[in-house]
Amino acid sequence: MTFDHAARRERLAGLLPAHEVQALLVTAPENVRYLTGLASSNAAVLVRADGSALLATDNRYIDVARGLDVPAVEASDVAGALAAPGTGIEAASMSVATYRRLGEGLVPLGPVVEVLRTVKDDAELALLRTACELTDQAFADVAERIAPGMTERDLARLLDHRMTELGADKPAFDTIVAAGENGAIPHHAPTSRELRAGDLVTMDFGARYRGYHADMTRTVSLGPPAGWQRELYDLVAEAQRAGRHAVAPGTPAGDVDAAARSVIAGAGHAEHFRHGLGHGVGLRIHEEPFLGPSRTGRLEDRVPITVEPGVYLPGRGGVRIEDTLVTREGGPELFTRTTKELLVL
Amino acid sequence: MTFDHAARRERLAGLLPAHEVQALLVTAPENVRYLTGLASSNAAVLVRADGSALLATDNRYIDVARGLDVPAVEASDVAGALAAPGTGIEAASMSVATYRRLGEGLVPLGPVVEVLRTVKDDAELALLRTACELTDQAFADVAERIAPGMTERDLARLLDHRMTELGADKPAFDTIVAAGENGAIPHHAPTSRELRAGDLVTMDFGARYRGYHADMTRTVSLGPPAGWQRELYDLVAEAQRAGRHAVAPGTPAGDVDAAARSVIAGAGHAEHFRHGLGHGVGLRIHEEPFLGPSRTGRLEDRVPITVEPGVYLPGRGGVRIEDTLVTREGGPELFTRTTKELLVL
Repeated sequence: MTFDHAARRERLAGLLPAHEVQALLVTAPENVRYLTGLASSNAAVLVRADGSALLATDNRYIDVARGLDVPAVEASDVAGALAAPGTGIEAASMSVATYRRLGEGLVPLGPVVEVLRTVKDDAELALLRTACELTDQAFADVAERIAPGMTERDLARLLDHRMTELGADKPAFDTIVAAGENGAIPHHAPTSRELRAGDLVTMDFGARYRGYHADMTRTVSLGPPAGWQRELYDLVAEAQRAGRHAVAPGTPAGDVDAAARSVIAGAGHAEHFRHGLGHGVGLRIHEEPFLGPSRTGRLEDRVPITVEPGVYLPGRGGVRIEDTLVTREGGPELFTRTTKELLVL
Repeated sequence: MTFDHAARRERLAGLLPAHEVQALLVTAPENVRYLTGLASSNAAVLVRADGSALLATDNRYIDVARGLDVPAVEASDVAGALAAPGTGIEAASMSVATYRRLGEGLVPLGPVVEVLRTVKDDAELALLRTACELTDQAFADVAERIAPGMTERDLARLLDHRMTELGADKPAFDTIVAAGENGAIPHHAPTSRELRAGDLVTMDFGARYRGYHADMTRTVSLGPPAGWQRELYDLVAEAQRAGRHAVAPGTPAGDVDAAARSVIAGAGHAEHFRHGLGHGVGLRIHEEPFLGPSRTGRLEDRVPITVEPGVYLPGRGGVRIEDTLVTREGGPELFTRTTKELLVL
């Protein structure tokens, strides 16, 4: 399956009149990639209201750029090469320094390409499905090796290595492994703490495949869980199920969050679940739409999203369970398929 | 060895009067880390001219932040929590969207913390030395496994895995492996191309260790090199040596570049070496100072920097040789120690 970058630029061009600009200077790397196929750390593309476009990148990437379906010019100041008065710019990604250097007459805009990117086409869903399959497979291969005595860092490394061995570009983000009391820290960075019998161990990781990011969290038990651990796990699993079941085209983002959060709140743990329920995934690991108590907007069809409730008990530990799934008419499609039964290892 | 973050904030405070601000709102993640020790994707620190400071981060990192030597407040809008009229902001890292949201009265500044970060203290040099040792060791361990039939991606993966097995945080950047004709592309992303006898193979990689980035490139020969390959290698090695020998406190950045570039130009390959000679390394993989034909400023003492000339022959192949070294009175200290003799594998 290949991407139709020209069609994407056409769709973008169609949005420009509503933003009252004749052209948009696209500088966010993932947006440039989405519109042209060029993956680089220094490129910009100008898309005009008539659908025509011009790409700029530096000498490191210009040869690749010249092989794409859009004219390309070589420049080290890629934004400067394309900017003209009256051009829209991406305010969320352009720096103040660049904006001031380019001079007057640019029109800062909010998310435009990001809105296009929210709904995925078949080629994108195929890549994301593969990214999630690699994630599932890496977990399956590594799970049997999880044992007391290995460190959080050891386990994170095993997951990372296995994902890339299986064909991932690289890990989609810095892998989280949190054992025992560290499980109470939602974004815990792996340490030399050893895994011990009696620990709950949370792993939050995913594969990036051809630019697309998978995201999955599982919490396992090292040895038979204590009563409170089993209880906590069942609660989060129930909240996660409720969240997944609320994912549907047309549903307000806040309602999906509430479906999961109310389960946790009902058990008296509202203050132990302090982050949003989930986020879109695609060319970025965190992208629109975001699911949270104060998030507005409704889900559309074909939107990959995570559902990842957690309960964190300071000093004791925590549980988080997360899937990547895709909104579909008739019910979401689950991309991460690893069991959500509590694994006792 | 530990970092004295308070001393760094004191030094920063001392620079503020010259920038005509009473406080600087620091938002670049590596600058926040440098000044407070907090590694996060969403934090800001306000440093005032009297040396006092206030850190803001979100609920994911606030518990870690509260354990540091600076007062911390929880906020999701970290810049918004700290901004006040008359405050300096980091124009190179703050987005136009954030700048406009925060309202009037902020003072966009150029590099301030970046200038402080250029010269490294002993604790930083120790971490960077370790990062380079891990890089050398990974190369030594992997070199004996390089053989025809493995792909560029296989080889990149071996280097990445070995670095993290040895204790690296992760690869310092996306590892480059370029075989044969792909060696003509300076920033080639590894593909499924198989390594073959007769190839020159360029590997550009490095370990990140506790936030500090190593950077090394070696080009090896699969089987005995052809005459033109040996000639090209010797030329680049000579240019690299000339560049290293020009690295000294007080030397203009442009002169270091010229020392290496003139060797390549003298052999008629000026147009085949289109990038700068090198760059600073530290909490970022690319940071000040940059070595290039039009770069101004002089090197200082204790500045880690790369020297990485290359010659790239379109369609045929290329050679790049790169070290990370540190400016010192009395001669640079070489951090990457892998041999620069042409390895024939």
